Amino acid sequence: MAGRGPQPLSGFPELMPGQRMIEQQIIDGLRRTFELHGFAPIETRAVEPIERLTGGGEIDKEIYAVRRLADVEERNSEAGLGLHFDLTVPFARYVLEHAGKLDFPFRRYQIQKVWRGERPQGGRYREFTQADIDIVAKDELAFHHDIEVATVMAQALAALPVPALRLQINNRKLLQGFLNGIGVTDPLAALRVIDRMDKVPASVVGELLRTESGLSEKQARASLELAGIRTPDTSFVDRVRALGVHDDLLDEGLAELAAIIDGCAGIAPDRISVEADLRIARGLDYYTGTVFETRLSGYDALGSICSGGRYDSLASDERCTYPGVGISLGVSRLLVPLFADGTLAASRSVPSAVLVAMADADSRSASAVVAQALRARGISAEMAASAEKYGKQIRYAQRLGIPYVWFPATTPEAVHEVKDIRSGDQVPADLDTWLPPEVDLIPQIITSPKTASRGIQ
Amino acid sequence: MAGRGPQPLSGFPELMPGQRMIEQQIIDGLRRTFELHGFAPIETRAVEPIERLTGGGEIDKEIYAVRRLADVEERNSEAGLGLHFDLTVPFARYVLEHAGKLDFPFRRYQIQKVWRGERPQGGRYREFTQADIDIVAKDELAFHHDIEVATVMAQALAALPVPALRLQINNRKLLQGFLNGIGVTDPLAALRVIDRMDKVPASVVGELLRTESGLSEKQARASLELAGIRTPDTSFVDRVRALGVHDDLLDEGLAELAAIIDGCAGIAPDRISVEADLRIARGLDYYTGTVFETRLSGYDALGSICSGGRYDSLASDERCTYPGVGISLGVSRLLVPLFADGTLAASRSVPSAVLVAMADADSRSASAVVAQALRARGISAEMAASAEKYGKQIRYAQRLGIPYVWFPATTPEAVHEVKDIRSGDQVPADLDTWLPPEVDLIPQIITSPKTASRGIQ
Repeated sequence: MAGRGPQPLSGFPELMPGQRMIEQQIIDGLRRTFELHGFAPIETRAVEPIERLTGGGEIDKEIYAVRRLADVEERNSEAGLGLHFDLTVPFARYVLEHAGKLDFPFRRYQIQKVWRGERPQGGRYREFTQADIDIVAKDELAFHHDIEVATVMAQALAALPVPALRLQINNRKLLQGFLNGIGVTDPLAALRVIDRMDKVPASVVGELLRTESGLSEKQARASLELAGIRTPDTSFVDRVRALGVHDDLLDEGLAELAAIIDGCAGIAPDRISVEADLRIARGLDYYTGTVFETRLSGYDALGSICSGGRYDSLASDERCTYPGVGISLGVSRLLVPLFADGTLAASRSVPSAVLVAMADADSRSASAVVAQALRARGISAEMAASAEKYGKQIRYAQRLGIPYVWFPATTPEAVHEVKDIRSGDQVPADLDTWLPPEVDLIPQIITSPKTASRGIQ
Repeated sequence: MAGRGPQPLSGFPELMPGQRMIEQQIIDGLRRTFELHGFAPIETRAVEPIERLTGGGEIDKEIYAVRRLADVEERNSEAGLGLHFDLTVPFARYVLEHAGKLDFPFRRYQIQKVWRGERPQGGRYREFTQADIDIVAKDELAFHHDIEVATVMAQALAALPVPALRLQINNRKLLQGFLNGIGVTDPLAALRVIDRMDKVPASVVGELLRTESGLSEKQARASLELAGIRTPDTSFVDRVRALGVHDDLLDEGLAELAAIIDGCAGIAPDRISVEADLRIARGLDYYTGTVFETRLSGYDALGSICSGGRYDSLASDERCTYPGVGISLGVSRLLVPLFADGTLAASRSVPSAVLVAMADADSRSASAVVAQALRARGISAEMAASAEKYGKQIRYAQRLGIPYVWFPATTPEAVHEVKDIRSGDQVPADLDTWLPPEVDLIPQIITSPKTASRGIQ
């Protein structure tokens, strides 16, 4: 524990205690929504064998390798472990490892830290919390689970104390079927280009579709027309039909997307808008149907803060395949910028609703009795650290945002009194019945329009 | 996502979903107790600079080093980071880093994973969850905070659904003062030997005190007499006095230990026994007063599952010193063995209190309306995955331990019915008012006497 002044580590955000209380309240709310819908929690170990993490081959640059310090020094190349970079790879492994003990369809949620060794920049962190829900089945997973995952996450998102959100949904069958229908030979290559629509202008995408994906001028134009369709309801179906392309997979994709948009209709429309957005492709090849992205109003630079989709093979072994559908909320990615610019704050920096004052050094045990009586009725209470002048004790409560100061009766004839430090009102109070208003029981989430930075790493 | 069958990693325990729900309930209970006492939560990043982790010098073998995989391959020796092996070192760093923004005394709790690269054996894990509370101040921390930390953790421990616990408390001033008083020149060396009293017989400790710590026969005998004192109340004071040793530091230690034992009196004596145990020394040199250990009845091999103490310098920088007192509960160390031997189990493997049955494929939306109505009133509900025969849907609920199956009214004239799958009773139910008994709302913790293994890694 050296005396050197420690510095923040870039990409590893840490919250102040008040902010952490808000983050916990938000995570508790997510848990509650997920559990009300029958999703069971799991937690997986932080590490996986590196060969499992690199299964896809293209993400090894982001992995943090983990080795015993002793082995590093001895250059011992023991079994390589790495920190997980998402919760999907560990979940797939968990399903394979425990398949015999799980019941399918298996609904799970998982709220954990993940780590990525990439350079920290613009909303990217090296350590961050994700909240994932997935439904996985054995061999076959009915499509209605896509709707289920979308509606559960939409309800969870709608309850968040954040600016308005836009859940954008598309379907890879729709895109791929359309590309088949217009005669594109390598639809995946085209999808990867279409996926860049939110980063580069349509004209550039059109150019890339021709030069990189080998589409004709006409095919590229049709693809851009498709990708330009965005509707808050199922009217996208008619607009796609109007493009005159015919393909069975396209029909399937249109029907699925329409069903999911219908299924999400009416979920807190003032808090979250759900729309069919035919640009959304999700670059990763393993999505095979529904795909999700989510934007935070006023924070376009953050990109998608909640993404996912359907994968026909989340995992597989010699005996069977496990199809899944899931969506992952970037908790840190969403909250850290809102803490940093002051949009989200806590009404106080401690859980305490009451500071129990102390008349003099001899009355510590009398104050302790008061504090314990309040706690027994669910009221968070802390005692003044020392018997300073009441004015100093009150200022301590004010500084921390503790809304009430309790003055214990100092003689058998006297009564207890409690002061609301905001109004200054001080009134007699009964220790067995006094309750603060519900809103003061736990720290409140204060939301304000975006302002200057109030501080976070 | 390869098809190979994944194997558990030794030392990285993972829970099944039902077990995880119980662990979460227990952690929620800890949080609630800590917050009622005004402790604020923080969460620190998983990594610290290795030089900070090795500050003490003697624990480097346990550290997991973390490096970007790309850097490992290039043998690039970039800034070394390691996973934290406890929550005290990161907390000390957090206090130094944010001292200007914190209010002191600062009460914090922290419930997080920690990692140790040691060989996994007998109750030792490479990844495990700890729950720590600490109070830290600037320059001076009043002794009453030692009592506060002890009583808060004793209340938290008393509420745990585990076998009886024994909180053993001692004081380093008492031990050191006594050793001073009998003329021992290197008290710390003697303390390190006394600390092994629970692992080796008293005769061996006596021998080691002479050979390793340089005590005379008489000094060793007196030390063993002291270390043999264990009382459930403050009667230890008279027993120490009877040994006829006089020293100011001893007096201070006796007074402090007596105050803390008095302060803990009467906290759920049927669940947790609190005792003065003068053997307890805690090997680590930085404890300077109160020390804590905790044993789980019937699980002696686990060693102490909750330990801590007072350190006069938790952290320091050029300007000041931050004394602290804290105690750390090994959540995984306590719970994983209880899950493994079946002492702790969940009443069901999903949060769902109700399975909403489905009459036929066309009635999915009718069932969805029922499920959503139940959720809106706080009842966790999942829908049958498909419209199989009712018998199969009921057996699914039985397999998962879901206590109720809801049969939606299938015609406008019909009524809803709900079946308790344990009794088999099926009764008409009103969708707007029906509630399960409180005990069925969330999964219950089932405790049973120690039995054969029921499975965990």
